[in-house]
Amino acid sequence: MNHIEIISALLSKINPSKIVIIADANLMQLCPGYFNFIPSHFSPYMLAIPSGEKSKSLTEATYIWQNMLENNFDKDSLLINFGGGMICDLGGFVAANYKRGIRFLNIPTTLLAMIDAAIGGKNGLNLHHIKNAIGSIHLPEEVIIDTQFLMTLSPLQLLNGWGELIKYALIGDQVLWQAINKMERIHYKSIKKEWIDRCIQFKNRVVEEDLYDTGPRRILNFGHTIGHALESLSFDKNNLLPHGHAIAIGMVCESYLSYLHHHVSLEDATTIKQYIQRLYFTPTLSELDFKTLIKHVRADKKNSHETINITLLDALGKASPNHTVTEEEVIQSLQWLQQ
Amino acid sequence: MNHIEIISALLSKINPSKIVIIADANLMQLCPGYFNFIPSHFSPYMLAIPSGEKSKSLTEATYIWQNMLENNFDKDSLLINFGGGMICDLGGFVAANYKRGIRFLNIPTTLLAMIDAAIGGKNGLNLHHIKNAIGSIHLPEEVIIDTQFLMTLSPLQLLNGWGELIKYALIGDQVLWQAINKMERIHYKSIKKEWIDRCIQFKNRVVEEDLYDTGPRRILNFGHTIGHALESLSFDKNNLLPHGHAIAIGMVCESYLSYLHHHVSLEDATTIKQYIQRLYFTPTLSELDFKTLIKHVRADKKNSHETINITLLDALGKASPNHTVTEEEVIQSLQWLQQ
Repeated sequence: MNHIEIISALLSKINPSKIVIIADANLMQLCPGYFNFIPSHFSPYMLAIPSGEKSKSLTEATYIWQNMLENNFDKDSLLINFGGGMICDLGGFVAANYKRGIRFLNIPTTLLAMIDAAIGGKNGLNLHHIKNAIGSIHLPEEVIIDTQFLMTLSPLQLLNGWGELIKYALIGDQVLWQAINKMERIHYKSIKKEWIDRCIQFKNRVVEEDLYDTGPRRILNFGHTIGHALESLSFDKNNLLPHGHAIAIGMVCESYLSYLHHHVSLEDATTIKQYIQRLYFTPTLSELDFKTLIKHVRADKKNSHETINITLLDALGKASPNHTVTEEEVIQSLQWLQQ
Repeated sequence: MNHIEIISALLSKINPSKIVIIADANLMQLCPGYFNFIPSHFSPYMLAIPSGEKSKSLTEATYIWQNMLENNFDKDSLLINFGGGMICDLGGFVAANYKRGIRFLNIPTTLLAMIDAAIGGKNGLNLHHIKNAIGSIHLPEEVIIDTQFLMTLSPLQLLNGWGELIKYALIGDQVLWQAINKMERIHYKSIKKEWIDRCIQFKNRVVEEDLYDTGPRRILNFGHTIGHALESLSFDKNNLLPHGHAIAIGMVCESYLSYLHHHVSLEDATTIKQYIQRLYFTPTLSELDFKTLIKHVRADKKNSHETINITLLDALGKASPNHTVTEEEVIQSLQWLQQ
């Protein structure tokens, strides 16, 4: 089914009063007629949001809420997110908190958003230079995967999503890991729809078991403890490292932590390091950066009681959450990354 | 059990990493030692919020979030709301959205908050002059009723809560209505703890049946459709009508709507009108005010598909939600109010 059939069926089923579309400004220019099929009695209203992580802000959320209030959007409205992870996170937050929660659907248009941000109901905004410092959990009515959009992505954007795809392979899908670990470069034509579906199914299974992220869901955080800190550091430096890129580098460090805690061999950790460093640039980090990174790791919302909680690999294709590592070990893993 | 025993038992049970207390600034001056019993290993951190409806804003929420981020509050933190409805609404919103949701408890210190805002998990902030335009539903771990605080309330604040208490009597508690409908004035000594408990039990029963406000919970909206519009109007005019006061006047109008729709007799509606007008001042409304009120009624988040959804009385002590009234009927009820 194409997006027109899926959305039309959904509209018949849930019969919203009105529709607001939160669209990435670049994307609106690329395919202005994508929503032309929506009947006019839903008064579809499109808001263009400037591309980029900086739009994941309370300022932008407030802009959307004010527009919705001025145009009398009620509790039975439907919000459609049309864009990448930033749009899914921002629009999800807006929907969760507009008049105590309205329904929404995600149409992720980047590889990263298809397999990550659009799935599982987590939304988030950045505050005070901290990524996803605020947010909530509010599930979408539906997620529409339209792989046509892969064609619109730059090599950098593809690599950005590829980082998360590597993660799913490493934490839960040995078959996927075997399929991808020989790839020397990433092209949109080489990405199989089946791989995307495997990632989504895996994430959905995990989320179903643990919607509110009290334990098992943390398996999805592999690469993210250090990855998020790298993102925050790059944000401080005004030289933004894309999410999937940061996660990929984070996975190198966290594979080493998995080795330090005797979960995988040094050989396996090295295989991961070599594969990721073949595809991704490794940032050069100073001693000062190490300190800043540790500060960001401490601020990570996954941490409780000031220990560093982390997900570790048990094998290539298997992981487990809720391990504890020390600051010193994190620094060792960053040093190993630089070798 | 006093508040020290209840909170100590809760802390043993849920073992939070840290505690942040969101307190009304006036209240902090009144009883600075109220939380001195909290062990220092919870690093209790108190934030004073200026009293008044204006603090129910994103600006204030952001101020709290930034303080919490700077002080490394994590997902296992506990937030304590200490104050009236504004604090419960603001702090509830902050807790619901801090790092995708942390636990919180309410210590309501006004009659209004004890029987309304502190119960049922709804939080909300005002935006664009619209009351509770944004917000979500996030249940507190516990609500502590300490009736000592009734003594601290001004006559106006008592009347403010009394409006909601009248509402519970009218929509669901004939016995309570019989007990209160002869009262000529309200004094804190005349308010029985048993009445507060009856209101809370009634609200909890309704909320349990319908947490996400999809139908039955709307019974609690009696007086609120027109009451909220009166509040918004008074906000526009910079001459704020207290919530319970607005709801009391709203109930007069909505009793008349109940009569227009043949649910109660004109005599019953008149009994309610006389009782409420004995206790509460009736605002004088111009034709222009009527138009503004209708606009605010339309913006009310309870409305769907641009009809006016309302709860009507079926008797003195019984009500039912989800009736539809017209703009003209709302105007008639406002005219009757002024007679």
